[in-house]
Amino acid sequence: MSSANNPPVSPLAPAAEPDLPPVAGVRLATAQAGIRYSGRTDVLYVGLDAGTIAAGVFTRSKCPSAPVDWCREALGEPSARVLVVNSGNANAFTGLKGREAVALTARIAARAAACPESAVFIASTGVIGEPLDARKFEGVLADCEARAEPGSAAWSAAARAIMTTDTFPKLATRTAAIDGTPVTINGIAKGAGMIAPDMATMLSFVFTDAALPQPVLQALLADGTARSFNCVTVDGDTSTSDTLLLFATGRAGNAAVADPADPRLAPFKAALDDLLIELAQLVAKDGEGARKFVTVAVTGAESDPSAHRIALSIANSPLVKTAVAGEDANWGRVVMAVGKAGEPADRDRLAIWFGDVRVAVAGARDPDYSEDAASAVMREPHVTVRVDLGLGQGSARVWTCDLTKGYIEINGDYRS
Amino acid sequence: MSSANNPPVSPLAPAAEPDLPPVAGVRLATAQAGIRYSGRTDVLYVGLDAGTIAAGVFTRSKCPSAPVDWCREALGEPSARVLVVNSGNANAFTGLKGREAVALTARIAARAAACPESAVFIASTGVIGEPLDARKFEGVLADCEARAEPGSAAWSAAARAIMTTDTFPKLATRTAAIDGTPVTINGIAKGAGMIAPDMATMLSFVFTDAALPQPVLQALLADGTARSFNCVTVDGDTSTSDTLLLFATGRAGNAAVADPADPRLAPFKAALDDLLIELAQLVAKDGEGARKFVTVAVTGAESDPSAHRIALSIANSPLVKTAVAGEDANWGRVVMAVGKAGEPADRDRLAIWFGDVRVAVAGARDPDYSEDAASAVMREPHVTVRVDLGLGQGSARVWTCDLTKGYIEINGDYRS
Repeated sequence: MSSANNPPVSPLAPAAEPDLPPVAGVRLATAQAGIRYSGRTDVLYVGLDAGTIAAGVFTRSKCPSAPVDWCREALGEPSARVLVVNSGNANAFTGLKGREAVALTARIAARAAACPESAVFIASTGVIGEPLDARKFEGVLADCEARAEPGSAAWSAAARAIMTTDTFPKLATRTAAIDGTPVTINGIAKGAGMIAPDMATMLSFVFTDAALPQPVLQALLADGTARSFNCVTVDGDTSTSDTLLLFATGRAGNAAVADPADPRLAPFKAALDDLLIELAQLVAKDGEGARKFVTVAVTGAESDPSAHRIALSIANSPLVKTAVAGEDANWGRVVMAVGKAGEPADRDRLAIWFGDVRVAVAGARDPDYSEDAASAVMREPHVTVRVDLGLGQGSARVWTCDLTKGYIEINGDYRS
Repeated sequence: MSSANNPPVSPLAPAAEPDLPPVAGVRLATAQAGIRYSGRTDVLYVGLDAGTIAAGVFTRSKCPSAPVDWCREALGEPSARVLVVNSGNANAFTGLKGREAVALTARIAARAAACPESAVFIASTGVIGEPLDARKFEGVLADCEARAEPGSAAWSAAARAIMTTDTFPKLATRTAAIDGTPVTINGIAKGAGMIAPDMATMLSFVFTDAALPQPVLQALLADGTARSFNCVTVDGDTSTSDTLLLFATGRAGNAAVADPADPRLAPFKAALDDLLIELAQLVAKDGEGARKFVTVAVTGAESDPSAHRIALSIANSPLVKTAVAGEDANWGRVVMAVGKAGEPADRDRLAIWFGDVRVAVAGARDPDYSEDAASAVMREPHVTVRVDLGLGQGSARVWTCDLTKGYIEINGDYRS
C-alpha cells in the first residue's frame, strides 16, 4: 500500500465541500470491491433513468485504456443507463485481458440495471498495466443498484470513491433555466497526477436533468471542455484514461432545443461552462504536491491558438513551476518559456506581470520594477503570470500549479 | 550568492577529468571579472590564430539572447580570432542595453586581440534579464590575451570558468587523421538546467587544428549535433542562450577537402561525432539534481523522426523521470508517454524493456516478467528504457536523467 494514499490535504482545497442537490433521474452508490485499495471505497455505481442520453470526450493518447475504447463505442448508441467507475486500477495496457475485463464489467452492470450492455459506461483509474479482475464486481453492482440514492451524501461519497492520489473530493453544482424550465447540473472529478491538456482530468462525470438531443449535448460538452479541462495542466503528462462524460436524463421536461447555438440554451451553456471550469481548477489545485494555484494569461498573441500554446509552454515549464514553488519572481524563465513555444514572439515587445506588478516591458526589465512588490505577489497562494506579446489580438488563459518536492515524493513511490 | 553554487558533485560525474592536449593555434585564459559570482573565475578568453574558421548552431528559441544574435551575425564572416565567454549573467532579454553590452564586449576583445570585431565570438550564461555590465571586461581581456596558454591546465580552467549550476567541468578530446595528417579535437561544455533538445547544452565550444572550409565545418557540426546535443534533455526547457561553436585553426595543414561527404573526412567526422556525444552525455549526467543517467531507445517506429519524438516524450515525462528516481520499474508510465507523443503507435504491438528485462509485450504485461529482475535494473546508476513499437524500421536514442528533489531545490532558489 502506497504512502501516497494519505498525503496531507492540498492547501488549495476549498474551505468547504459543496452540498449537491439531487438531479432527477440520477441515483448513486459506492462500494468496496477490493480492486487495489483496502479500507476505502473503490467503486462508483450511477443508475440513470430510462431516456438518459450520454456525451463524452476522451484522451487523445494513442494508447487509450480499454474502458476508453468501450465508452467511445458505447456512444454510438447514446442511450445510457449505468455508469461504473473504479479506482485503483486503470485497466490500461492490459491487452486482450483488459478488453475481456471491460466486457465482463458491462455484463455484470447490465444485469444489475436490467439494461442492454451498450447502455453501460465504464471508467477506470489507477495503475496502468495490471490486469483488472472484473469478477470482483459480481454481486457488488447489483447491491449498489439496490442501495443507490439521489441525495447529497451519495454525491459526496461518489466524489470520494473515484479518488486516487487526490487529496480532496471535487464536486460542483449549478442551476440554470432552459426556456423558463429550471434544470440542475452536478459534476464530480478526480485528477491529481498525469494531468495535461488534451483532456486534463483523468476522470470527470457531469449529470443534468435537462432534456437535450445527443448532438447538442456533445457540442456543448466539447465546447466547454476547450475552455476548461483543456486549459489545465499539472505536469504535461497525458493519461491513457482521460474521460469526461455528460449525462442528461431529460427529467426536467424542458422545451426541445435542436441547435446548440439556440439563444434559449445560453444560460445552460454558461452554467455548464462555469461548472467545468470550477472542476478543472479544482484539479489544478490538487495537482500532486501543489502549494500554489497558478493562472497563466497571455494576450497580444497573433491568434488565440498561438496564445494557448504559449500559455501552456509557460504553465508546463519545470523551471517556471519550480520558481513559483520557491516564491521567486523569476521572469527570465517566463521569457525562456515564451521563446521555446515556437510561436510568433518578438523579444523586444514582450511585457510580463506577476499579479499586478509589471516586471518586464519592451524586451527588458521594467525600470520601475520593485522586487519587493513582485515578491509579495509570489508569496500568495494564488499567483497570476501575465504575458503580453504586443503582436495581435490573440489571448488565452490556462491554470496550473507549482512543482514541489511533494510531486517527486508522490510519484517516486506510487507503485510501491 | 546562491547556495546552488556549491551543490554536491553529481554521482554520475566521470571518475577522472581528462587531460586535454594542446590544439595548435588555440590559447586559453580565464579571469575573475566579478560579473556575478565572487571568489571564482567567470570569464573565458580563447585566442585563435589568424586563419581560424568558425561554425555554429544555436537555440531555436524565439527570444534568443543578445550574444546569440551577435554570433549568428558574426558567422556571416566566419574568420574567428577570439572567443569570450562569461558565466553568471546570460545577457538575455536585456533589450537595447544587452545589444550595447555585446558591442562593447566585442570592442574590448577586438582591441585585446588586435582583430576586427567581426572576428569576435561571444557567449554568456547565467541569469536572464539582468543588465550585463561589459565595462567589467575592460583590462581583463587584454590581460587574458597576454596570459593565454595552450596546455591542459588552461583547458581545465576554461571548462570551470563557464560553469553555472554544473557540479563538474565537462571536457573531451579526440584525435583523427585527415588523409594521413593527424588532427586533434578538444571540446568543453556546460549544461545543468534549462536543457532540452533544439540545442540541449547551454554552451559548448569545440576546437580543432584541422583545415576545413566553412561550409564543410558547418555541415559536420550540424550533422553531429543532431545525433548528440539534440538527443539530450534534462527538463524539456530550452535556453535563450544555447550555443555550440566549432573553431578550426587549420594549423594541422591537412589536405584540402571540399565535400563533407568525402571519404577522407570519415575518421574526422566519426571522432567529432563521438566527442559531441560524450559532451552531450556529460550534460545529462550533470542535470540538476541528477542521480541516474537514462538512455531511452526506441525501435520499430514508422520513421526515425517519429522514433525521436517518442523517445523525447518518454525522456521528458516528469512521471517517467520521477519513477526512475524512485527506482520503480513503472512501465505503465512509459506506455503513457508513448501514447501522448501523438506519433503512430499500436498499443497491442508495444514491447518495453528496462535494461535487458522485458516487462511488457503485445499490449500487456510480459507473463515472464520478474519484478525482482526489473527492480535490480532500476537500482543501477545507468538505466536503459527500450521501447519497440512493432510498426516499422524507425529508431532513435536519447539521453536524460531522473527528476529528483534536488532539481526542485536548485531551481526553487536560483536567483535568491
